[in-house]
Amino acid sequence: MKPLNIAILGCGTVGGGVAKILTEQKELLSKRAGREINLKVIAELNPEAAIKRFGLDAKYFSKNSIKEIIEMQDIDLVVETMGGKSDFVHDTCLNVLKSGKNLVTANKALLAERGADIFAEAETKNLQLGFEAAVCGAIPIIKGIKECFTGDIIEQVSGIMNGTSNYILTQMQYQGLDFAEALKLAQQNGYAEADPSLDINGGDASHKLILLLKLAFGLKVTMEELSIAGIQNITKSDMDFAKEINASIKLICFAKLEDKQVYAMVRPMVVKNDNILSSVNFAVNAVRLDNKYSDTHFLIGKGAGSSETAMSIVSDIVFIARHGDVPAYNEEPKYTLGDSKKVSFPYLISFRTNNLPGTTGIITTAIGKQGINIETVGHNRFSGSGDTADFSIETESCTLEAIEKAIAEIRTAKSDLLLEDPKILPILY
Amino acid sequence: MKPLNIAILGCGTVGGGVAKILTEQKELLSKRAGREINLKVIAELNPEAAIKRFGLDAKYFSKNSIKEIIEMQDIDLVVETMGGKSDFVHDTCLNVLKSGKNLVTANKALLAERGADIFAEAETKNLQLGFEAAVCGAIPIIKGIKECFTGDIIEQVSGIMNGTSNYILTQMQYQGLDFAEALKLAQQNGYAEADPSLDINGGDASHKLILLLKLAFGLKVTMEELSIAGIQNITKSDMDFAKEINASIKLICFAKLEDKQVYAMVRPMVVKNDNILSSVNFAVNAVRLDNKYSDTHFLIGKGAGSSETAMSIVSDIVFIARHGDVPAYNEEPKYTLGDSKKVSFPYLISFRTNNLPGTTGIITTAIGKQGINIETVGHNRFSGSGDTADFSIETESCTLEAIEKAIAEIRTAKSDLLLEDPKILPILY
Repeated sequence: MKPLNIAILGCGTVGGGVAKILTEQKELLSKRAGREINLKVIAELNPEAAIKRFGLDAKYFSKNSIKEIIEMQDIDLVVETMGGKSDFVHDTCLNVLKSGKNLVTANKALLAERGADIFAEAETKNLQLGFEAAVCGAIPIIKGIKECFTGDIIEQVSGIMNGTSNYILTQMQYQGLDFAEALKLAQQNGYAEADPSLDINGGDASHKLILLLKLAFGLKVTMEELSIAGIQNITKSDMDFAKEINASIKLICFAKLEDKQVYAMVRPMVVKNDNILSSVNFAVNAVRLDNKYSDTHFLIGKGAGSSETAMSIVSDIVFIARHGDVPAYNEEPKYTLGDSKKVSFPYLISFRTNNLPGTTGIITTAIGKQGINIETVGHNRFSGSGDTADFSIETESCTLEAIEKAIAEIRTAKSDLLLEDPKILPILY
Repeated sequence: MKPLNIAILGCGTVGGGVAKILTEQKELLSKRAGREINLKVIAELNPEAAIKRFGLDAKYFSKNSIKEIIEMQDIDLVVETMGGKSDFVHDTCLNVLKSGKNLVTANKALLAERGADIFAEAETKNLQLGFEAAVCGAIPIIKGIKECFTGDIIEQVSGIMNGTSNYILTQMQYQGLDFAEALKLAQQNGYAEADPSLDINGGDASHKLILLLKLAFGLKVTMEELSIAGIQNITKSDMDFAKEINASIKLICFAKLEDKQVYAMVRPMVVKNDNILSSVNFAVNAVRLDNKYSDTHFLIGKGAGSSETAMSIVSDIVFIARHGDVPAYNEEPKYTLGDSKKVSFPYLISFRTNNLPGTTGIITTAIGKQGINIETVGHNRFSGSGDTADFSIETESCTLEAIEKAIAEIRTAKSDLLLEDPKILPILY
């Protein structure tokens, strides 16, 4: 079989890692693929730095423009590791496919927000589009769904898909730090960027969930349609109450199939310790699948990092080399996106109130009136002082809609009772 | 593309589950595969029972002999779910391939102990041999290695691959049962068979490890060559000391690549709680991979059960239907099997001795003389009585060879000191 010739666009953290594995392990990878896997050219604005950082041979670095490289006749597969969702990167990816080449990328933002025509072009041309590295780095969740659980029906996806926020939450839980301190530590240790917004506000995790919604449920969802909340408002007191009820707080990507609707959201959740997701700490990622036939699965591994993400890309390359022109995997679009306020969870609701007589009565009465059963109440335990009372209610299964009605009722009953919007966290068993 | 026609041999727990999914989900599976997936015939000695148990249509059940079925011109793929490693089952599998058909099986005993000519025949004929279900049921570890981590080099495999023994150990740990009580409970709840030998003596787990050794390291190992110990001798006292050092005891399949040698064994190990394997309880299976480029992975799921194992077989069928004649995946045989006594672990050594003055001195002196550092000593804590002393030593990293020398030295120093052979359990971090 003829060699698979590869071009890499962008030789930074991930692209450089790919080049390193492809050159270090060329013989092994070629054996596994059943054909020669041949790195041909690298496009990089600053080749000297990349050569030094990754110990690469200068011969790979091309003086041709990216436009020229993706039109080269003898390139079979292009690795896009420039990142970002600019027009330039978008158009480059599209043109790789238009020029008849397979594409492998780790670019979750691009594929989740502007990927529709890229996916469509790959299908039309029957070309391979590898994006294992775009969702949870080294965890093989894409091939898991496309190639391994094909005998099953995925009924629920829940996972920790952003390492930065998981690192921060882990530090809050185990070191007793507050959010700001934990974020600072994450930045000092290289787990969070100077501008950490996309990691802590749920944006990055949402990109991954959007890609999984397409693959697992055939559902095309935009960022605007998805219910997204980040971890910025999680406090030490929330952490403490979670511990009290044998749980930890995690930023969870969640999707559940129920009556032909998929309820999807990204938000902090209280994960009970019996659920292995609760034990996934620091910058590690994890995906849990609950399947119709094969029950519960966990895939746990590194969600980021140069060689981890690069490994995922290289595995996509070997897969494409091994399997040639397998048809695109498309789950039939037979479900619709449900209103996430209408899906049932047990919830943890944290109230900060004026410390007045009758408070507990007003709140618990309003909750009861909505048909919500209370599982436990933790009153004033952690951070309440003389004038304010903090307390948390663990409910049995109910909807966010019902909880919001109860809160409106509390506000009507006594307008100065609640000092701030209560925090409402779903509980995962 | 033409339909993929399937015959199932044996319609018991697993085969019936396969037939059920193939008929219930025919349309979905065919879409995913890109071609019709068509259950054609089932061979079963007692069709009435199978029809009733799995709600299957009688039309699938053939009156032809198995020999006749595997020679049918219009069958493309045969699912072997008879089980066992008899000549009949072995020859049937071989003849399926000889007659040019793909084979999918969950039969770990057959493939691990008598599979050499079956694997060879599949390769010679360039036919597909699916055995995902043979190793840890629903966990996609076979496709994980063959299709997902192909950009990496596996350096260590460790896993919980027998659900029965894990169920027993979990009951011992959390309910404080002794081994006999926990085994009885497992039998009552359907997790252990009337004759549980193969599950508790490490035999079943060894079959799975042998298949993984071939796939991950290109190593052909027989049952006789593998170092195997079961869980029969694990006591409440061992469990208690493991808890004391923040660990649990698990039956671990282990293989480690070091200096071109692979050290492999199946035996109870003390797994520290920071290792997620320690949190994998009841009948669940888990595989941990430690890879050169992508660090640590866990794949966790159900290792047995009708629909779980069946799902794995059906996924193999969809994979074969989707990918056609991909070449066999063979890791190059460039390593040899190392002597498991020479690989280093921290160890937990449990002594039962006569309660005599000087005991601790004799034991710890002998251990020190072999260059083994002691991490912690737990003396007489749990089950020691007046005449006997029980104590456990947690060592730093050392070899079993050194420990055995120390024990010989103890016996020489005082022949009546040790009341029984000390228990020596590797510790996994």
